[in-house]
Amino acid sequence: MGKGSGAAEQVEKRYFEFALPPDTLALECGKSLGPITVAYETLGKRSPAGDNAVLICHALSGDSHVAGSYADDPDKAGWWETFVGPGKPIDTSRYFVICSNMLGGCQGTTGPGSVNPQTGKPYGCDFPVVTIGDMVRVQKALVDHLGVKRLLSVIGGSMGGMQALDWSLRYPDMVASCIPVASTARLSAQALAFDIVGRQAIMSDPGWMDGHYHEHGSGPRAGLAIARMIGHITYLSDESMRKKFGRRLQEWEDYPYEFVPAEFQVESYLKHKGESFLARFDANSYLYITKAMDYFDLKREHGTLPAAFSKARCRYLVTSFTSDWLFPSYQSKEMVAAMLAAGLDVTYSEITSDYGHDAFLLPCPELDELVAAFLARTREALNA
Amino acid sequence: MGKGSGAAEQVEKRYFEFALPPDTLALECGKSLGPITVAYETLGKRSPAGDNAVLICHALSGDSHVAGSYADDPDKAGWWETFVGPGKPIDTSRYFVICSNMLGGCQGTTGPGSVNPQTGKPYGCDFPVVTIGDMVRVQKALVDHLGVKRLLSVIGGSMGGMQALDWSLRYPDMVASCIPVASTARLSAQALAFDIVGRQAIMSDPGWMDGHYHEHGSGPRAGLAIARMIGHITYLSDESMRKKFGRRLQEWEDYPYEFVPAEFQVESYLKHKGESFLARFDANSYLYITKAMDYFDLKREHGTLPAAFSKARCRYLVTSFTSDWLFPSYQSKEMVAAMLAAGLDVTYSEITSDYGHDAFLLPCPELDELVAAFLARTREALNA
Repeated sequence: MGKGSGAAEQVEKRYFEFALPPDTLALECGKSLGPITVAYETLGKRSPAGDNAVLICHALSGDSHVAGSYADDPDKAGWWETFVGPGKPIDTSRYFVICSNMLGGCQGTTGPGSVNPQTGKPYGCDFPVVTIGDMVRVQKALVDHLGVKRLLSVIGGSMGGMQALDWSLRYPDMVASCIPVASTARLSAQALAFDIVGRQAIMSDPGWMDGHYHEHGSGPRAGLAIARMIGHITYLSDESMRKKFGRRLQEWEDYPYEFVPAEFQVESYLKHKGESFLARFDANSYLYITKAMDYFDLKREHGTLPAAFSKARCRYLVTSFTSDWLFPSYQSKEMVAAMLAAGLDVTYSEITSDYGHDAFLLPCPELDELVAAFLARTREALNA
Repeated sequence: MGKGSGAAEQVEKRYFEFALPPDTLALECGKSLGPITVAYETLGKRSPAGDNAVLICHALSGDSHVAGSYADDPDKAGWWETFVGPGKPIDTSRYFVICSNMLGGCQGTTGPGSVNPQTGKPYGCDFPVVTIGDMVRVQKALVDHLGVKRLLSVIGGSMGGMQALDWSLRYPDMVASCIPVASTARLSAQALAFDIVGRQAIMSDPGWMDGHYHEHGSGPRAGLAIARMIGHITYLSDESMRKKFGRRLQEWEDYPYEFVPAEFQVESYLKHKGESFLARFDANSYLYITKAMDYFDLKREHGTLPAAFSKARCRYLVTSFTSDWLFPSYQSKEMVAAMLAAGLDVTYSEITSDYGHDAFLLPCPELDELVAAFLARTREALNA
């Protein structure tokens, strides 16, 4: 648990629009997109010195609601509630926090479920392929709009860490520090493979209709649930699954010897995760977002990792978790080596945890302390 | 490669029928099944002393064709060709080898695709749930039919190793040695989870039709391909996937920025594996076989692993592979500890390999030598 905890701050889902006609945003894919709406929230207050803005980037299934409480929906918890708030590691009594839904998402920011102004219908798979870099450029437009000149830190876990890394290389003068948590400069072949099979499950579901299910039908529900179940296996670890479920049956004394819906506890968990995802996520967004994650490759983009980090001017706090096999520690270590080779100020910690990749979303005192201290130190250095 | 290699022996796919009316085989699920056809092949000649029979049990997607050459289809390689044959580790110039397709399979032995004599139509999901124990009892009927009184060894990799283990506990007087390769006394929660999602992919495919697709339609092709793709990720290792595919694109210089069919090499590989599986495997068999694997649990069945192995009277050669995360080494070590606690003669080797679970099907000199020497020693001991 984050240390201390004042009353939850009231937050509001806000919207920022840009790339309005005649403007558009030129995307990395060569196409352009506009207008673009960005859903975001802010917590805390910005300091007069402008030295306390922290941009938080969410991962695959997150959204702009990182913490705090909506007036009209106070029970809807933020996705990083344990980590962000008054007295918590990202202390909103000290820092001005910004979090926006990513480009291509389905929680308010323009994505494949948004209406294509050219047709008056949802884009579906006419939406252009977007990249982590595109997402970051959209965030930059928001940050500019908010009048923030400099970010004390950009932080994100998993795919959010990819965005944080991209920020640190794309806008080096704006970023004082960068905190990629359980992240990587590029996915492994194995992680790519899981994304590929997840997308295949969606696209081979007859309900997908070549991406145009918004106009008719209920969409590739079975395929999206399968993709999400695969994802959840990869977010846990062998050890955490053994502890959490083992081989226990859900509601049977002995094997039923039938194909029943939820025989093992782990089956019940996965199916619940798959089904509950359908209520809050758009299948096309899943395709676009995982594709952006798969395309992210700092080595490919910059030639080598040291060449990539030679563009950075911030300090880094890199953390990984021992049991995370989706974003394994060796990838963080490879990044850290490249950061050091580029002469950067880097703190690295491999945190012992059984929780696999999910560890970054769970209470973790070691991460809490590292981040709180790193932010405070960075702010001091900024004002030194 | 197996050392030495004489000309491939000619083999023939044979069939054995039992549980003919009025008989049936009582299954562990409480139902009974009959008649039962078993597809099998034998290689080598049995010795006059009856001390050279080796039963090989295949894994999930294997069949009775373990090695040798069919007269009418000489190019169809056996699934363990590198390991079984004249001069190879399981040397068919010395040993009499038996391999049968498992109960519930789709390569000649009775399974869900077989005709239900009560309806004259394929069983589909009216087929009873079968277990590893049921499969072994069917193999026992075949071995009896062949007049083999004693098995020098029962060997199998992965799920084949589960059958070998079951043999050693169920018919201790018939088994002189047992060689579970990359196997386990029970799947981990993580391995269960992958099977569960694979089955879900099949059963949520509209083509599955509650298991009765044999009568109409082409079956859950997309679902079965997804299940197979998931499987193949788990058969490889992070390291072998990096070496084999890395993040290389299949036929593009740069990202196409489109949802194209096979963008990454790993995608092309997985899709090929998924699609080619459709031509040779029945989706319902996939359900039944993975279920049998999931149900296998020597601890559950016998109370504890030492209690299970207290029933054995054979010597064991247990092997696992360092990079196998589906049937991880710690599970083999747990078995070995229980075998030792039961006072058994056990040889264990954890073989260093990057190839993941698939290692057991690939040429492996260390495994070759271990098995060849172990079989020879066991035969000597039998005649001492």
